[in-house]
Amino acid sequence: MAEIDEMCRLDRARASVLAELHEVLEGETLRAQRHGPHVQDLWRRTAQHIGGGKLMRPMLLLEVLDAFRAEGSAGPAGSDASRGSDAARWSDAAHGSDPGSGAGDAVALRCAAALEILHYAFLLHDDVIDHDLVRRGDDNLVGALHRHGRAGGDDGASLHWARSAGILMGDLLLSRAHQLLARVDVPAPMRAELLDLLDHAVTESAAGEFLDVGLADGMIPPARREIDTMTRSKTAVYSVELPLGMACVLAGAGAEVRAALEDAGRCIGIAFQLQDDALSAFGAEHHHGKDPWSDFREGKQTRIMDAARSTASWPAVAELLGRSDLTDAQGLRLRGLLVDCGARDRVAEEIEALLDEARRILHDGPARIPAAVVEVIEQQMRRLEGRTR
Amino acid sequence: MAEIDEMCRLDRARASVLAELHEVLEGETLRAQRHGPHVQDLWRRTAQHIGGGKLMRPMLLLEVLDAFRAEGSAGPAGSDASRGSDAARWSDAAHGSDPGSGAGDAVALRCAAALEILHYAFLLHDDVIDHDLVRRGDDNLVGALHRHGRAGGDDGASLHWARSAGILMGDLLLSRAHQLLARVDVPAPMRAELLDLLDHAVTESAAGEFLDVGLADGMIPPARREIDTMTRSKTAVYSVELPLGMACVLAGAGAEVRAALEDAGRCIGIAFQLQDDALSAFGAEHHHGKDPWSDFREGKQTRIMDAARSTASWPAVAELLGRSDLTDAQGLRLRGLLVDCGARDRVAEEIEALLDEARRILHDGPARIPAAVVEVIEQQMRRLEGRTR
Repeated sequence: MAEIDEMCRLDRARASVLAELHEVLEGETLRAQRHGPHVQDLWRRTAQHIGGGKLMRPMLLLEVLDAFRAEGSAGPAGSDASRGSDAARWSDAAHGSDPGSGAGDAVALRCAAALEILHYAFLLHDDVIDHDLVRRGDDNLVGALHRHGRAGGDDGASLHWARSAGILMGDLLLSRAHQLLARVDVPAPMRAELLDLLDHAVTESAAGEFLDVGLADGMIPPARREIDTMTRSKTAVYSVELPLGMACVLAGAGAEVRAALEDAGRCIGIAFQLQDDALSAFGAEHHHGKDPWSDFREGKQTRIMDAARSTASWPAVAELLGRSDLTDAQGLRLRGLLVDCGARDRVAEEIEALLDEARRILHDGPARIPAAVVEVIEQQMRRLEGRTR
Repeated sequence: MAEIDEMCRLDRARASVLAELHEVLEGETLRAQRHGPHVQDLWRRTAQHIGGGKLMRPMLLLEVLDAFRAEGSAGPAGSDASRGSDAARWSDAAHGSDPGSGAGDAVALRCAAALEILHYAFLLHDDVIDHDLVRRGDDNLVGALHRHGRAGGDDGASLHWARSAGILMGDLLLSRAHQLLARVDVPAPMRAELLDLLDHAVTESAAGEFLDVGLADGMIPPARREIDTMTRSKTAVYSVELPLGMACVLAGAGAEVRAALEDAGRCIGIAFQLQDDALSAFGAEHHHGKDPWSDFREGKQTRIMDAARSTASWPAVAELLGRSDLTDAQGLRLRGLLVDCGARDRVAEEIEALLDEARRILHDGPARIPAAVVEVIEQQMRRLEGRTR
C-alpha cells in the first residue's frame, strides 16, 4: 500500500509538471496568434513533443525539495544572514498550513517547468547539430516538421526549413527558461541564486557540446583533458547539479549542505553521461530508440573511445570510427572490439566509482544532509544504475 | 565646432559601449578557462566579431535616453503611481550632480551591451540558417572558424563544426542578454518592464525569421499576410522598438510618450527592414558586402517580390527566383525586371509612407514628446534614408 501511495504521489507530481508545461506552451500558442497559423502550428507541435520523456530533471527538483520540507529543516542557511533569513521566511510562508497549495509550490513548479523547457531547448539544438530526426523511436520535432514539409515534394527545402525551425524554437524556449526564472516570486537574493545556477548550467552545457562536436569532427585533438571536460559539462551539470542546486536554494538549505549536494550531483551527473555513452554504444536499439550506430557514425570521442585508445585494438577501432556509411556488420565488429579490449568494463568501473563517491559524500561528508534527501537521491542513483534507455 | 563636439560625444558613447561589450566578453573568456583553450579561443574570436557594426541599437538607446535626461523631464510617469515614483527616484539618483558617472549610466550601458549581444546572437543564428559565411565583406564568425578548420583538410567536417559553434555561441549570447537584463540594478517593476520588452522582441524576431525561412523554402504559401508579418517581426521590433522602449523605461517616461515612441519605432523599424530588402536586391555588392544575389538565390519572399507578384512580369521573376545557381547575368535580369515592373518604386513609396507616419506620430500625436527626443529619432531617420548598407 505504501508503495502504491508513493507511486500515486509521484504520478500526481508528474501530472502537475505536465500541467505547468502545458500552461506555458498554451500561453505562447495564444500569443502567437498575431503571427498567424504557421507560427501557432509550430508551437502546437512543440507542445506535443516537450515533456515526452521521464521528466527526470523537474522530478529530481520536486522530490528533493519535498524531502527537505518533510524534514522540516534545511540546516543553517549559510553565512549570509540576510539571505538566510529571507529564504527561511519565504520557505515558511510557502508551507503555511497546507503544504500542497502554498506559494512555494507554485514557485517550485515554475522552476521545474523551466528545467524541462531548458532541457528541451538543448535537445532541439543537439538534434539539429547531430542531424537527428528521431528520438525514443519516434520522429522528434525536426523529424515531424520534415515529414510534414517533404510531403510537398522538395526534400532539401523541407529539411532546411525543419532544422531552421529547430534552431528558432530552441531559441524561444531557451529565452523562456530565462524569463520564467527571472520572474519567480521569491526574494531577490534567492532569485539571483537561481539565475546564477542557470547561468552556470547553460555555460557548461554549451561548452561541453562545443567540445563534443569539435572532437567528433576532428577539429579538436582527442586529448583526455578535453574528453573529460566534455563528459563533465555537456549534460551532467544541467541534468543533476542544477536541479539539486535549485532544490537547495528553494529550501533555503545551508551552504555546507548545498555544496555537498552539488558535489554529489556532479558525480552522479558524470556517471549519467558515461552511462548514456555506454547505452548508445552497447544498448539495444529498441531500448534507446535511436540509430544504434549514430555515435559510431558521427565519430563521437566518448570516454569509451578514450579507454580503447591505449589498447592494442585501437587501430582497428579507429579504422571504423566516424564512417558515415558504417554497416551493421561493421557496427557489431566495432562494438565487439570495444568489449574485448576492456573499454566497456573500464567505463563501467568508472561509473561505479563515481556513484560510490556520491554515496560517500552523501553519508560520510561533513555536511549533515537530511536523511529523506539522501534517500531521494539514492533512489535516483538506483534508477540510474538500472536504466536501459 | 558644435558639430565636432557632437561627433566627439557620439564617439565617446560608442567607445563606452565597446568597452562594456569587451568587459562582458573578457569575463566569459576568463570563465571559459575551466573548459580549456578551444572554448577560450571561441570566446576570443567572438569578441573580435561582435560590435563590429554601427552599434545602431545601443546608440539609439543611449541617445534617446540622453535626450530625455537633457530635457530634465520624461513627462508624467504613467498611471501606476508606485512604478512612476520608483522610476523617477531611480532616474533622479542616476543623474546626481554628474550626469556622466551616475549609477544610471552604468545601467544604461549594461542595457546597451545587452542589445548588441542580443543582435549578434540573432545574426549568428541567421548566418547558420542562411548558410552565410561572409558579412560586411569579411568572414563572419562561422566563416572565420571554417577557414581555420578546413586548413586541416576536411571541408565538410569543418563547416559542420563552424556552424555548430555558431548555434552554440548564439545560445550563450542569447542567455547572456537575458542574464544581463535580469540583473540590472533598477527597481523590480522597472526590471520587469525591461524583461517584458526583451521577451516581446525575442518572440517577434524568432517568429519573423521562422516565416522568412518557411516562405523562402516554399513551406509557407507567399500570402501578403505572412509577408507583412515577417517584415514587421523579423528585425524591426528588436532593432528600433526595443531600444526606444528601453530608453522610455529607463527614463521613466509616461505611458503616452512611451506608446507614441513605440508606435513610431514600429514604423521606422519596418521601413528599415524594407530598405534592407531593397539594398540586398538593388544595392552594390561593395556596399553591403554580401553575395549580391543571396536573397534571390535563397528565394526570399520579400515585400519587393510581393509587389512584383501582381504584375505582368511575375512569371519571368518566378522563373529566376530561388535558383541556387543564379548567374550574374540572370541576377541582373531579375533586378531589371523588379525595377521595370514598378516593384522597386512601390517599396520605396512604402518606406516613405512609413517614415511620414513616424514623423506624424512624433509631431502631431497626442503625446508631448520632448523636442530633444524627437530630434534624435529624426536624425536616426535621416541616417536611415541615406544609408547604402
